[in-house]
Amino acid sequence: MLLEHINEPKDLKSLSVPQLEQLAGEIRQFLIEKLSATGGHLSPNLGVVELTLALHYLFDSPKDKIIFDVGHQSYVHKMLTGRRGQFDTLRQYKGMCGFVKRSESPHDVWEAGHSSTSLSAAMGMALARDLKGEKNKVVAVIGDGALTGGMALEALNHIGHEKKNLMVILNDNEMSIAPNVGAMHHYLGKIRTDRHYQKAKEELNQLLNKIPAIGGRLAKTAERLKDSIKYLLVNGILFEQFGFTYFGPVDGHDLPQLMETIEQAGRAQGPVLVHVITVKGKGYSPAEADSFKWHGASPYKIESGQMLKAVGPPMYTEVFSDALMDLAEQDERIVAVTPAMPGGSGLLKFAERFPNRMIDVGIAEQHAATMCAALAMEGMKPVYAVYSTFLQRAYDQVVHDICRQNTNVVFAIDRAGFVGADGETHQGVYDIPFLRHIPNMAIMMPKDENELRRMMKTAIDYEDGPIAIRYPRISGLGVPIEQEMKPIPFGTWETLREGDSAVIAAIGPMIPVAEEAADLLKREGLNVRVVNARFIKPLDESMLLKIADEGLPMLVLEEGSELGGLGSAILEFYSLHRRDDMHVRIVGVPDLFVEHGSVKEQRQEAGLTAEHAALELTSLLPRLRKRVPGQA
Amino acid sequence: MLLEHINEPKDLKSLSVPQLEQLAGEIRQFLIEKLSATGGHLSPNLGVVELTLALHYLFDSPKDKIIFDVGHQSYVHKMLTGRRGQFDTLRQYKGMCGFVKRSESPHDVWEAGHSSTSLSAAMGMALARDLKGEKNKVVAVIGDGALTGGMALEALNHIGHEKKNLMVILNDNEMSIAPNVGAMHHYLGKIRTDRHYQKAKEELNQLLNKIPAIGGRLAKTAERLKDSIKYLLVNGILFEQFGFTYFGPVDGHDLPQLMETIEQAGRAQGPVLVHVITVKGKGYSPAEADSFKWHGASPYKIESGQMLKAVGPPMYTEVFSDALMDLAEQDERIVAVTPAMPGGSGLLKFAERFPNRMIDVGIAEQHAATMCAALAMEGMKPVYAVYSTFLQRAYDQVVHDICRQNTNVVFAIDRAGFVGADGETHQGVYDIPFLRHIPNMAIMMPKDENELRRMMKTAIDYEDGPIAIRYPRISGLGVPIEQEMKPIPFGTWETLREGDSAVIAAIGPMIPVAEEAADLLKREGLNVRVVNARFIKPLDESMLLKIADEGLPMLVLEEGSELGGLGSAILEFYSLHRRDDMHVRIVGVPDLFVEHGSVKEQRQEAGLTAEHAALELTSLLPRLRKRVPGQA
Repeated sequence: MLLEHINEPKDLKSLSVPQLEQLAGEIRQFLIEKLSATGGHLSPNLGVVELTLALHYLFDSPKDKIIFDVGHQSYVHKMLTGRRGQFDTLRQYKGMCGFVKRSESPHDVWEAGHSSTSLSAAMGMALARDLKGEKNKVVAVIGDGALTGGMALEALNHIGHEKKNLMVILNDNEMSIAPNVGAMHHYLGKIRTDRHYQKAKEELNQLLNKIPAIGGRLAKTAERLKDSIKYLLVNGILFEQFGFTYFGPVDGHDLPQLMETIEQAGRAQGPVLVHVITVKGKGYSPAEADSFKWHGASPYKIESGQMLKAVGPPMYTEVFSDALMDLAEQDERIVAVTPAMPGGSGLLKFAERFPNRMIDVGIAEQHAATMCAALAMEGMKPVYAVYSTFLQRAYDQVVHDICRQNTNVVFAIDRAGFVGADGETHQGVYDIPFLRHIPNMAIMMPKDENELRRMMKTAIDYEDGPIAIRYPRISGLGVPIEQEMKPIPFGTWETLREGDSAVIAAIGPMIPVAEEAADLLKREGLNVRVVNARFIKPLDESMLLKIADEGLPMLVLEEGSELGGLGSAILEFYSLHRRDDMHVRIVGVPDLFVEHGSVKEQRQEAGLTAEHAALELTSLLPRLRKRVPGQA
Repeated sequence: MLLEHINEPKDLKSLSVPQLEQLAGEIRQFLIEKLSATGGHLSPNLGVVELTLALHYLFDSPKDKIIFDVGHQSYVHKMLTGRRGQFDTLRQYKGMCGFVKRSESPHDVWEAGHSSTSLSAAMGMALARDLKGEKNKVVAVIGDGALTGGMALEALNHIGHEKKNLMVILNDNEMSIAPNVGAMHHYLGKIRTDRHYQKAKEELNQLLNKIPAIGGRLAKTAERLKDSIKYLLVNGILFEQFGFTYFGPVDGHDLPQLMETIEQAGRAQGPVLVHVITVKGKGYSPAEADSFKWHGASPYKIESGQMLKAVGPPMYTEVFSDALMDLAEQDERIVAVTPAMPGGSGLLKFAERFPNRMIDVGIAEQHAATMCAALAMEGMKPVYAVYSTFLQRAYDQVVHDICRQNTNVVFAIDRAGFVGADGETHQGVYDIPFLRHIPNMAIMMPKDENELRRMMKTAIDYEDGPIAIRYPRISGLGVPIEQEMKPIPFGTWETLREGDSAVIAAIGPMIPVAEEAADLLKREGLNVRVVNARFIKPLDESMLLKIADEGLPMLVLEEGSELGGLGSAILEFYSLHRRDDMHVRIVGVPDLFVEHGSVKEQRQEAGLTAEHAALELTSLLPRLRKRVPGQA
């Protein structure tokens, strides 16, 4: 076993190429075994074993900066930088993060989670290096999927202009999470598949050498032509046009060839791009066979490749998916739009059934949002299915194109609230604060599967502007599904449990927590009313005023930032209506980033528990019971 | 005069080409005259006179959709669609908007203001058209500067993939607001400047025809070569690689040639790109000579081209600019970053003095933000100078890269609050709500020129994470500038006027309004305290608790959305600290988009006046005076 002797990158430097190849095999074996117990991003990491070895062999981390785009392909990097012993805690609470994490190691120089940031990071590090007069290398490793993200293209453009020394490794596995979309993809495909290019290039050189010396302009033209052909045929033209020197394509699993190419590229001046072809899941046949399924794997049996499935009620994603198909059957205006997440957003079945009405734009959240505005203006009903955390990328487009033009776009915001093992980069805790202040926006959150279905119908029927439904990355409550989707009266809340001591207004998965808190207080002789505050915007104003008239204190319980969230909306409402007699407390996600763990652990860390809610509410009660209701 | 007979696009159709050319002259004359009185985007519009005529002559608006990117180049379009009579009210309150505006005309099919949205809009409209089985054309007009924006590149990529019929007109004037940045720019430059391309292409065709028939693979290679050369030399390769058919470059002021090219492009299948070379300011020599100055012109004298300048204290932009240079002189870590706004953000002088420490990334707000995070991680002090409204584009990068990694990035947020004539697409009223809920973020706003300088020093010295200074698009108060920049104690407010009846907490330009409201209430015998709430995050908690202990009601006055703004922060604070005895009112920008006009008119519309503030505060007072201070 070589692996057990590798505790930092310098331990690689004395190995021979055959030893490195042996090590690659051991690393694969290690990953396949460890992840069978914990789950995790198996196939992206199996794809970059040789690449990561080559980078740590050839460069001097952390002096040289190795930046991983997204960062879920950093497991091999973690193994080579002293964290092999922590894989049993991968993605678990207080355990090792599934992404690059600066607090774990000095070799982790840049954190991500969202895609397409690595080129901007590399540019910043190269600029800083040159301003400080230092000499280190800067290397960004980016997948072909991430390259379609707007900010990556902005960075390509800027890097090509500034001509700083930096290296981009294009890890081309023909796959982001879903198969890539777009012209860039076809372009890369052309390079990959045409085996004749090298041969053709040689023949053309012969051909050009046969051209007689004609002299004058034509000779110059021929010379230029020769140069151009070189580029055209090696076919890094797109990147060359952006100002990069292009190397490759090279087989990312052929270690000697890979190391030679990277070394050669490292000697070039200015920005270079090394095009590396890798296979996701390389070395584990179930993962090679189904890249999508094995992108983020649940625990599995190694021999059969069978993943352990959770049993229980359907995920909200699935409920959304079914409801959307039912509605699309009736309403031809419905078009589903996804930024590279057809699987995660539950749109695969929809795509099969309505291929013309499903638009996967690739990693391009901004373009998707603005395109939805235009679709709506032309009479369609675009349903923008997007994770809460990724919708952050389209904030400006939501303000400027969708809401300002007041277009009938439906947002299906998945992964709202805590997301568990993906951790702080993926938490969906800001969508209420970043959407609520935008004029014309309506926002809902369902309490269970049927309410999600009803909200889907409500949203599709709504003709007064943009409307969002946010739902969590968990299973539903298991309620029986009603086939009919009865719209919900716009802007109304519902009382789920009566009570005359106090009110808890809660949303989504916080409703069972509210019920539990009410049960706890019941034992103290308090009758707490539980309200489903399903419209976050607009609020149910008449219910809010009625509660104030009754003189009941209110606790707001939400799995989202408590700065600018639903609780703040209620405080603002009572201030605006001069109801200073109303007493409100908020229990939400405090002003900090909550790291990876289970959703339950994350809730505990944030204080989103029945006990905390009950305690907070009790603090309001002694004084309030002295108040005369209606004194306002 | 032909112009007076043109009231809708169909009036053009009967004109001959020479008549259209005459009309172009009349349009220029009209614009130069009208804008000399109102100001406005003169040079972009002088650049697209022939182009707009050609589009309305060749297409059938509004059935065919003409989409203008940004939209400040739509004046000619407005003249041709029945709005010639409204130019005296251009950009004025309740007058004609300076951008495309759907409520003005059915020919205005898409609104913008922020750049780079038109390709996504065109894609959405083309998709909707095909889904509905309709036949109209879709045309997007986009400048070369806007093409570097990430979302435009996302859209190019998607359009190239989907192969819908749509036309992109690349209006290439070598100029966004500032000279363009980036590899794309160089690429376009190469096409523009090499006059030999056409000639070379012909010669190469001759050359290739001389190649003997060799048969077999070499013949095929030669064939492919021929195709490639065609593309390479016409040199739309970048666009061809993205899947577009490329036409041009064509002189955008040569009407016959322009019309022929667009007509030809209109007959092609799939996405086409017509590369049109235009001159900003065409036909008015002062504007041709200085494109930047004449991009957005103040009123001017036609003959001399002399613009009328406002007299008075310096703009905050200028104060920022001077302070940054003073600090950069002392601190080598300081690097200024701008997304294509070196002039508007006051960085031109800085760029002259510190050319290596000024980075203009082009229209690329996202890339700029993430690059700043990396610069800061490597020990630099990046100052990201950006308008409030454009920072919206980088919201995710601020959350995910800057704040989550807690990097020492300084934000210089210009145009915070109302911006006047640019109107609703440019209002800087959301930055507090979209920044305040992000962990690690600090936010300040100065009351005057000296405080801005002091805040700059505070921000540069701050080593605990990201910090923002927001300042308005207006002149300062005219206070004498103190050369020394004394840092402000972190998280502190200051009392500007004592008073024991109530408190107004105000920020920035709302402080004089607060003073005026206090004066009004003084006449009623009330002593209102005025507090400069200069730290929006973190709040001055001890001052807030002291005010609560004194039993004083509080009015919060802010030129920003009253949903999730400073007022909400204060409500949240008192709720968290269980100070239900505290009574707070908010006067901010209500939940609607405020259109163009003067800042004063916009404030009036939003209710940001001393009278309204005084009235709102009075509503709190009668009841409160009965309260026993400290009863909480």
